[in-house]
Amino acid sequence: MTPHPSSRFMECLQYAAHKHRDQRRKDPAQTPYVNHVINVSTILAVEACIEDEAVLMAAILHDVVEDTDATFADLEALFGADVCGLVREVTDDKSLDKQERKRLQIANAAKTSPRAKLIKLADKLDNLRDLLVNTPQGWTEERRELYFVWAKQVVDNLRGTNTNLELKLDEIFRQRGLL
Amino acid sequence: MTPHPSSRFMECLQYAAHKHRDQRRKDPAQTPYVNHVINVSTILAVEACIEDEAVLMAAILHDVVEDTDATFADLEALFGADVCGLVREVTDDKSLDKQERKRLQIANAAKTSPRAKLIKLADKLDNLRDLLVNTPQGWTEERRELYFVWAKQVVDNLRGTNTNLELKLDEIFRQRGLL
Repeated sequence: MTPHPSSRFMECLQYAAHKHRDQRRKDPAQTPYVNHVINVSTILAVEACIEDEAVLMAAILHDVVEDTDATFADLEALFGADVCGLVREVTDDKSLDKQERKRLQIANAAKTSPRAKLIKLADKLDNLRDLLVNTPQGWTEERRELYFVWAKQVVDNLRGTNTNLELKLDEIFRQRGLL
Repeated sequence: MTPHPSSRFMECLQYAAHKHRDQRRKDPAQTPYVNHVINVSTILAVEACIEDEAVLMAAILHDVVEDTDATFADLEALFGADVCGLVREVTDDKSLDKQERKRLQIANAAKTSPRAKLIKLADKLDNLRDLLVNTPQGWTEERRELYFVWAKQVVDNLRGTNTNLELKLDEIFRQRGLL
């Protein structure tokens, strides 16, 4: 059998595109938000050679509970407990304030499962690639610089997961003088 | 092997999302254009049970030459002759005027290959589903009605391709009093 996206993968992609339809990235071009989650899943498939469908689906869904009205119960009913569990591992608790969420991302990174760590690495890689070429709307240069510093602290707690992704992240940290 | 989207499928999805990033649908919510091509591919995977990866990829890419700066040469180099050939079959010639393009869609439908017919059916199904709930910005009610009439003429020349898709299209035509 040649590989092909399953109907459940396509349903998950369509679901995420629909849920994120009103959201845009913070770049000057106002890129649709769904492009980011597509990038994260593509990084995993192409640059990390991941063939684990649940990981690729969870990458597509990784912001859908954090940023839309979707719930974990929805995801479990639609896409099963495995995919839902992975999304849960990479979802911040939005009831906490932003600084606390950022602190917890560093603290919790090391405790994450290896499959969820892959999604976190690919998410950071796509965000940092964006940040290398664009300053998000409303951000100061200082805020941008601090994001690189914080992202490196998160990534340092995710290491030992995927050589390719870590090498690409390190290239960016080196470029920014952080390594 | 469990099914999983291949790296080339993910690359094609990322490519289409990137190329269509500045385009929006004509609905009042300004939905990202990429949602439409995701819908078309999802209709094929879920509602027509298609597992032919090239067809699902061509569905994702079906408007990329018509509506962005992508060329057939780009698609052939990136995704191969089979995918490129399918996209070519479903691409209108934009050098012709709109009425002539619409006439040719009816005339050419019957000559299309069975795999390209699938994409055309799914494309029409997604467009008509949109049109059932929204009048595109700038359209009169008459223009909307004429779209249903024209779409039925195209679909009539695509019949005998996929029972599920044709039944769903017929349900819409019946709802509009065209069948």
